[in-house]
Amino acid sequence: MSQTFRPSGRTPDALRPVVINRHFTKHAEGSVLIEFGDTRVICTASIEDKVPGFLKGKGKGWMTAEYGMLPRSTHTRMDRESAKGKQSGRTQEIQRLIGRSLRAAFDLDCFGERTLHIDCDVIQADGGTRTAAITGAMVAAHDAFSKLLGRGVISQIPLKHFVAAISVGVYHGVPVLDLDYLEDSTCDTDMNVVMTEAGDFIEVQGTAEGAAFDRAALNGLLDLAGEGIADLIALQKQVLGLSLS
Amino acid sequence: MSQTFRPSGRTPDALRPVVINRHFTKHAEGSVLIEFGDTRVICTASIEDKVPGFLKGKGKGWMTAEYGMLPRSTHTRMDRESAKGKQSGRTQEIQRLIGRSLRAAFDLDCFGERTLHIDCDVIQADGGTRTAAITGAMVAAHDAFSKLLGRGVISQIPLKHFVAAISVGVYHGVPVLDLDYLEDSTCDTDMNVVMTEAGDFIEVQGTAEGAAFDRAALNGLLDLAGEGIADLIALQKQVLGLSLS
Amino acid sequence: MSQTFRPSGRTPDALRPVVINRHFTKHAEGSVLIEFGDTRVICTASIEDKVPGFLKGKGKGWMTAEYGMLPRSTHTRMDRESAKGKQSGRTQEIQRLIGRSLRAAFDLDCFGERTLHIDCDVIQADGGTRTAAITGAMVAAHDAFSKLLGRGVISQIPLKHFVAAISVGVYHGVPVLDLDYLEDSTCDTDMNVVMTEAGDFIEVQGTAEGAAFDRAALNGLLDLAGEGIADLIALQKQVLGLSLS
Amino acid sequence: MSQTFRPSGRTPDALRPVVINRHFTKHAEGSVLIEFGDTRVICTASIEDKVPGFLKGKGKGWMTAEYGMLPRSTHTRMDRESAKGKQSGRTQEIQRLIGRSLRAAFDLDCFGERTLHIDCDVIQADGGTRTAAITGAMVAAHDAFSKLLGRGVISQIPLKHFVAAISVGVYHGVPVLDLDYLEDSTCDTDMNVVMTEAGDFIEVQGTAEGAAFDRAALNGLLDLAGEGIADLIALQKQVLGLSLS
Amino acid sequence: MSQTFRPSGRTPDALRPVVINRHFTKHAEGSVLIEFGDTRVICTASIEDKVPGFLKGKGKGWMTAEYGMLPRSTHTRMDRESAKGKQSGRTQEIQRLIGRSLRAAFDLDCFGERTLHIDCDVIQADGGTRTAAITGAMVAAHDAFSKLLGRGVISQIPLKHFVAAISVGVYHGVPVLDLDYLEDSTCDTDMNVVMTEAGDFIEVQGTAEGAAFDRAALNGLLDLAGEGIADLIALQKQVLGLSLS
Amino acid sequence: MSQTFRPSGRTPDALRPVVINRHFTKHAEGSVLIEFGDTRVICTASIEDKVPGFLKGKGKGWMTAEYGMLPRSTHTRMDRESAKGKQSGRTQEIQRLIGRSLRAAFDLDCFGERTLHIDCDVIQADGGTRTAAITGAMVAAHDAFSKLLGRGVISQIPLKHFVAAISVGVYHGVPVLDLDYLEDSTCDTDMNVVMTEAGDFIEVQGTAEGAAFDRAALNGLLDLAGEGIADLIALQKQVLGLSLS
Repeated sequence: MSQTFRPSGRTPDALRPVVINRHFTKHAEGSVLIEFGDTRVICTASIEDKVPGFLKGKGKGWMTAEYGMLPRSTHTRMDRESAKGKQSGRTQEIQRLIGRSLRAAFDLDCFGERTLHIDCDVIQADGGTRTAAITGAMVAAHDAFSKLLGRGVISQIPLKHFVAAISVGVYHGVPVLDLDYLEDSTCDTDMNVVMTEAGDFIEVQGTAEGAAFDRAALNGLLDLAGEGIADLIALQKQVLGLSLS
Repeated sequence: MSQTFRPSGRTPDALRPVVINRHFTKHAEGSVLIEFGDTRVICTASIEDKVPGFLKGKGKGWMTAEYGMLPRSTHTRMDRESAKGKQSGRTQEIQRLIGRSLRAAFDLDCFGERTLHIDCDVIQADGGTRTAAITGAMVAAHDAFSKLLGRGVISQIPLKHFVAAISVGVYHGVPVLDLDYLEDSTCDTDMNVVMTEAGDFIEVQGTAEGAAFDRAALNGLLDLAGEGIADLIALQKQVLGLSLS
Repeated sequence: MSQTFRPSGRTPDALRPVVINRHFTKHAEGSVLIEFGDTRVICTASIEDKVPGFLKGKGKGWMTAEYGMLPRSTHTRMDRESAKGKQSGRTQEIQRLIGRSLRAAFDLDCFGERTLHIDCDVIQADGGTRTAAITGAMVAAHDAFSKLLGRGVISQIPLKHFVAAISVGVYHGVPVLDLDYLEDSTCDTDMNVVMTEAGDFIEVQGTAEGAAFDRAALNGLLDLAGEGIADLIALQKQVLGLSLS
Repeated sequence: MSQTFRPSGRTPDALRPVVINRHFTKHAEGSVLIEFGDTRVICTASIEDKVPGFLKGKGKGWMTAEYGMLPRSTHTRMDRESAKGKQSGRTQEIQRLIGRSLRAAFDLDCFGERTLHIDCDVIQADGGTRTAAITGAMVAAHDAFSKLLGRGVISQIPLKHFVAAISVGVYHGVPVLDLDYLEDSTCDTDMNVVMTEAGDFIEVQGTAEGAAFDRAALNGLLDLAGEGIADLIALQKQVLGLSLS
Repeated sequence: MSQTFRPSGRTPDALRPVVINRHFTKHAEGSVLIEFGDTRVICTASIEDKVPGFLKGKGKGWMTAEYGMLPRSTHTRMDRESAKGKQSGRTQEIQRLIGRSLRAAFDLDCFGERTLHIDCDVIQADGGTRTAAITGAMVAAHDAFSKLLGRGVISQIPLKHFVAAISVGVYHGVPVLDLDYLEDSTCDTDMNVVMTEAGDFIEVQGTAEGAAFDRAALNGLLDLAGEGIADLIALQKQVLGLSLS
Repeated sequence: MSQTFRPSGRTPDALRPVVINRHFTKHAEGSVLIEFGDTRVICTASIEDKVPGFLKGKGKGWMTAEYGMLPRSTHTRMDRESAKGKQSGRTQEIQRLIGRSLRAAFDLDCFGERTLHIDCDVIQADGGTRTAAITGAMVAAHDAFSKLLGRGVISQIPLKHFVAAISVGVYHGVPVLDLDYLEDSTCDTDMNVVMTEAGDFIEVQGTAEGAAFDRAALNGLLDLAGEGIADLIALQKQVLGLSLS
């Protein structure tokens, strides 16, 4: 099959162009506009000097995430969730995933009784919004902790390891990396993977949209994901001015 | 009083730098990022081929608006309205104002049984979000109607007149144009004005935050607003490539 | 144009008969039934010995307002807001306006850490419910403070100035005072004005329902409003047994 | 025990003064202000020319009721249910009771596919609001059907029998009729009874607030209720100008 | 009339087979599966070591109840109340009834500042779910207090008297005990009765579904209810291993 | 490591005792009580003769799932979701997973425009409620389709393949099958796997609760899951009286 079977002309193992734009808005302690091709997500990190009730007095911090899509970030306008009066199951599922992923990247014991609020708001959607959100939120959170470090509130950034996320899927029978909307809406299998810079897994979420997939397909997808995530973490470090090792 | 009594150093009759960025996102029929200084609002216009129930079968169109702020568009993070399960009174008041203003700009009888949905989402707030929203939505709506015109759905843009909006207020005793957040949070009187290109009023909403204001003060504020709105409408036409007359 | 062009036969500058009935219900510290013609609103003022969280410990008081309409106060029965599970945007807009107006009439620094709750419930609607509500709530609040004074809780009524409210509009091309429902539903411009006894403005909210209005029309409307409000404040003082000066 | 053991000085078998004020508001097809002493309830009946989905096409009518209390109808201000976003269990229980009682009074087969909406809004509460509501709603509904009769829509009022409601209870060991708030809040047993003009039961709802009550007490209470309801139905007929037989 | 006029073939004064299954689930302090024929309800009693705000510091306990039906406990699947976002009026009415009944059975002054939460969840419905719930909850609550007694937290079970509940109704003109669904959906009068072991009333709730009922019918129903409740209380005591006197 | 390092004494690759009880309630077309040790879930399948709006007129069927926990199914009583007015993110995530899993098991093209509603209600929780729910729902759905087959509505059960689900995790460094609550609350990695009878994947959802996990650990877990699911599917077929091939 020619390399141009993907609607975008990408090879199966190619990411879309990824851009990470720091300091996108001025109020948040960390603010990133991340683009995975035409998918654009604003990720902000806000520090609050208190923790939820279940953590009070334990000397630990907390990180939590919320996710939203602007009504016309999509092909057809969606109803605004605040007007409907509730968040969809999909929204809640995604924000729980983002929260777990970020809590795995940082050491909650090392920044006092503070909450880091992650807000990921999709302004343009073309597939992969949750993986872009996690990848961008990692940088926004790092910036927020840098700000705390700069204020002398903490003595070092409470980093356990960098994390990033990418989608993989079986499209027309071929495992491909970083599905865009056209691929996502017709692929057989869709998997979102969150990994550390060491190549270990934080989350693996694979779903057979059509036919069930076998162990070999799963292995092929995980291989692709590992390569993509390594590239994303290299980019995160580069935009933060950190050495890549 | 020196011209630098305003925190920004602006003269009393000076607008902040205004930037109108068309085609900001790709899915919406009209999409504008408008900036009044540090206030940045995404305004999209989406066309739906049906009208609300109360207009069905009447051959008329409808325009409606929704407004939101990203949680960290402000100095301190606000709760997300979709998570709280309802929109605040302020949000509803603003989206009703935007809707009325836009319905005054276009002729609802001339684009069939269609609804134009305006979405104004504040990504960074520094005062004047509702006036920026109206001013940007005017351009986004014009772009959306141009798209309908290009598709041959309508034979001309159903424009009655351009509208724009600006805030004015009494700050330290002096009437000033286009209040930013620092001014807005301490001024005595705050007024939002929506006007047409002919200099007529669509909306006048003035509130005494502290001392009541007299007729002379009101007149001074309306004069300032008129000048600011004339400049904004000139800019709207310029970015749309229209003649200014 | 003959004086009978108004459906009610009123002259353009005539208020409807206004009746202010104090002590309408027995539990509230202040309770007023106010009638602007066929518009009838129950306004109660309730004193609570605490303030909202954002004011705790600051030694200041607070005033807030809620507004509702009985389902069959209108020509056609409306859905009950408690059954729908939320208040409409219109309801919230009106109760915010009433609250701001009353907070401008009294000195929040002078009655301790207490909240005055204003409840305005429309039992019959014929246009102008929000202006009747503000005008009646002024009297109810005054009565409530008198009760606090009588109990020795405060040493004087924390009055800054009397306020009242009236609507004005352009009806068949003529500026008219105090629109009833028939006028309100067909007029071109609708303006609600809240003023002090000194003739200064607390709120000016004008909307072009149809054609935009020019500066001259605005001035004509504000003149009419000033006359009407002077009469309303004279009546408020009279029913309270206060001298008119 | 002297006859003055009741706080109001009433004898055990005495109703409070009952006033039924027809045509209280002008828009509703039926509108009654009913007073049981200091308890005052506005009862309106509104006719809608359609029925709920489960009755469509069956040629039958429907009657339904809603109930509310103004926030300061009570000694201490209650939160507004529309602001809280839901109706309490007590509110729902009462409006279901009112609806069942009225549906027992009229023949749903005889007024076409129409809904009669009953709205009972308490403007002042002093015990017995639900029984006043039912008794007043009976008159409001009769007035609404009279209006349909006058318009020639129906050929006779679809009356099965008059109904009215009263509370009875054991207060300081003595069965008493028509409890006011002081009695209601301290009595041992509280019973609400809805009966027809023939003396038959529509609803009997008795609750032991303190000690359980025996069969003899129950019988004493039902005797009292029967007498009170006969008086209320006589008054309903009198204010409607109907013969009492 | 032959004894088989009831769909189940029961005589008018016959209960359905009643089974009370203690220790049905393992986490709750008291857990009962009760069956009235095909009606099956799980009743659990959970102890919480605090009381609602209105009781704090008063040294008293509280009991409260919630009720739910599994979506397919009924002939036709009902919408899930958590998915609809609110409990129906019927649900709230029933849980208030269960709560009042249980609070009448135990002495709230004798188990410290604790709350006993009763949860009654219907897994299969065939009429009489609320009466089965009350009857089962009595046993679950007794078990929960036994657990507190066993832990030495209280010195005796705070029992005032056993209570049980049963429905009675007029079916095809005959008073019958313990209505099942087929009877309940077509009977003329439906009454739920809660009584103590001494034969006194806690609650009497009778409703004329069709024709109003007279005093003689009421008396016949209460006689039947008394017999049924005596049997139920005997069974409660037997399954708890208590003497019947 | 001895085989008793698991709190239950199970070997790492041992399922808990699994019991599948068909025909548990009488109204539902399919009704199963499934037990994974102390985890007990009622799974019902209800057939409705219509499809959601997005499928109308397409000749296809739909399957959807809802999930709930009784308030005292857990160690500590949880708030009832219907009383809170919304479903948690966890609830929504689980019901979406159940729905996707069941839609993968049956052919939606082969049972007409009908919806199969799956309801999974946990009456006792001890870990693994979602996997028990999926495994039990498979049987309930099969029973519901058998009923349709028996009625002649469909000509064969629209089965694509049996599916079952199990959890696996790394507990004290050892991969173990079918985590109970004690293991689940302390394990490092938690994975839920849904597979077909052919050993292919429908869903893989793995989360690093503590340390990230590497590829080898993932492979070990998937091996274990495959064995467990084969046993579960054998049991599903056995209770349905089907041959195991």
